[in-house]
Amino acid sequence: MATDMTLIWFSGSPPCWRVMIALEEKNLQGYNQKLLDFLKGEHKSQEVLDINPRGQLPAFKHGNNILNESYAACLYLEEQFKSQGTRLIPMAAPEQALTYQRMFEGVPFMDKIANVIYYEWKFPEGERHDSSLKRHREALTAELKLWEGYLEKLGAGSYLAGKNFTLADVVVFPCIAYVFRFGLSEKNYPRLAGYYGLLKERPSVKTNTHMSYSCKTIFDDIKPDAYMY
Amino acid sequence: MATDMTLIWFSGSPPCWRVMIALEEKNLQGYNQKLLDFLKGEHKSQEVLDINPRGQLPAFKHGNNILNESYAACLYLEEQFKSQGTRLIPMAAPEQALTYQRMFEGVPFMDKIANVIYYEWKFPEGERHDSSLKRHREALTAELKLWEGYLEKLGAGSYLAGKNFTLADVVVFPCIAYVFRFGLSEKNYPRLAGYYGLLKERPSVKTNTHMSYSCKTIFDDIKPDAYMY
Repeated sequence: MATDMTLIWFSGSPPCWRVMIALEEKNLQGYNQKLLDFLKGEHKSQEVLDINPRGQLPAFKHGNNILNESYAACLYLEEQFKSQGTRLIPMAAPEQALTYQRMFEGVPFMDKIANVIYYEWKFPEGERHDSSLKRHREALTAELKLWEGYLEKLGAGSYLAGKNFTLADVVVFPCIAYVFRFGLSEKNYPRLAGYYGLLKERPSVKTNTHMSYSCKTIFDDIKPDAYMY
Repeated sequence: MATDMTLIWFSGSPPCWRVMIALEEKNLQGYNQKLLDFLKGEHKSQEVLDINPRGQLPAFKHGNNILNESYAACLYLEEQFKSQGTRLIPMAAPEQALTYQRMFEGVPFMDKIANVIYYEWKFPEGERHDSSLKRHREALTAELKLWEGYLEKLGAGSYLAGKNFTLADVVVFPCIAYVFRFGLSEKNYPRLAGYYGLLKERPSVKTNTHMSYSCKTIFDDIKPDAYMY
């Protein structure tokens, strides 16, 4: 039982979800956890600031070791518990290279999702422009097509870095789940939809079904040009 | 001689610089390299697109393994050449945790730098707002103060994750060098300035002095409120 670990998290947050999936994959159940409410600003509490001076979640501790950035926490858990649970970084150089490469392509992917989904939250009313939102939506569409192409090349039933589930899936799957939950068309992105369907059934993902949230279908709400999605 | 490696890079790019520092630290000299000109759009050439479909640099290959995201390349080089050159991920859990944590705090750090330095490049003229630039500058100031505080806590002569040079330094030093090159006041950030001075003399950094570029002092050019920097 991982009683020396504490995770403070939000429901529906892709970065928090990454850490939860990694913990499950490494068989680290039974950690202390606390669910906070973003809308109430609970992440700006002293309890969070003591762990994460940025006032953001996840906030994660293993003993006295603090890992608040989701990628940092995932890499640390894999490295510290290498022989426990799923091996998340392949040993062989080609698979390892692809794992790292796709993991870090997840950073611009999440940025592009955020630029669309959080547009109104990121930009005050007087600073919003249709031209800007259109550009963000086009960038996200191009990004989604890139990932659709990656999966097409690997073939049906593949994970993001090949035949095995890796840390690339741990960090990027929550992004893919996020866009589908926000209304991305499964018909327009069949490979991504297939991948989403495969991963949804994985125990480490299913266990964390409390990662649900009231999901405004923002893609439907804001899109003037439905063909993009 | 790392003749099975190829790096395509831009002068002055922090992500390219990270990979170059990592290669030096792992004693991987003699790789094939090609310097491209950003202003001429050379990164959109077929040669680059064949390695990096995003049309971005760095574009890096080790044999047939492709690692275009700078963090991915650095982690791969450390993992594949663990016992060669500088050990960049500490074994001990507390140092390892801090290394990963600071490494990934480097991502929002670089984002905040980019939001200020590349403001005019990122936003077309009609979408620029003084209020927005002011918010970005405040966010960067808060970020710089956070790092100044981290270094103050560790004491003079420290690296970003403690007594030893780690992957946190490889990926974050180029951000810190960048803000100083763009005119950040050494007087206002004495710990960051001390760290910059220390790292500038490190062989893996000195070797790559060709990472210089014509450096518009954008901090001086655009700041209405000089006290921030």
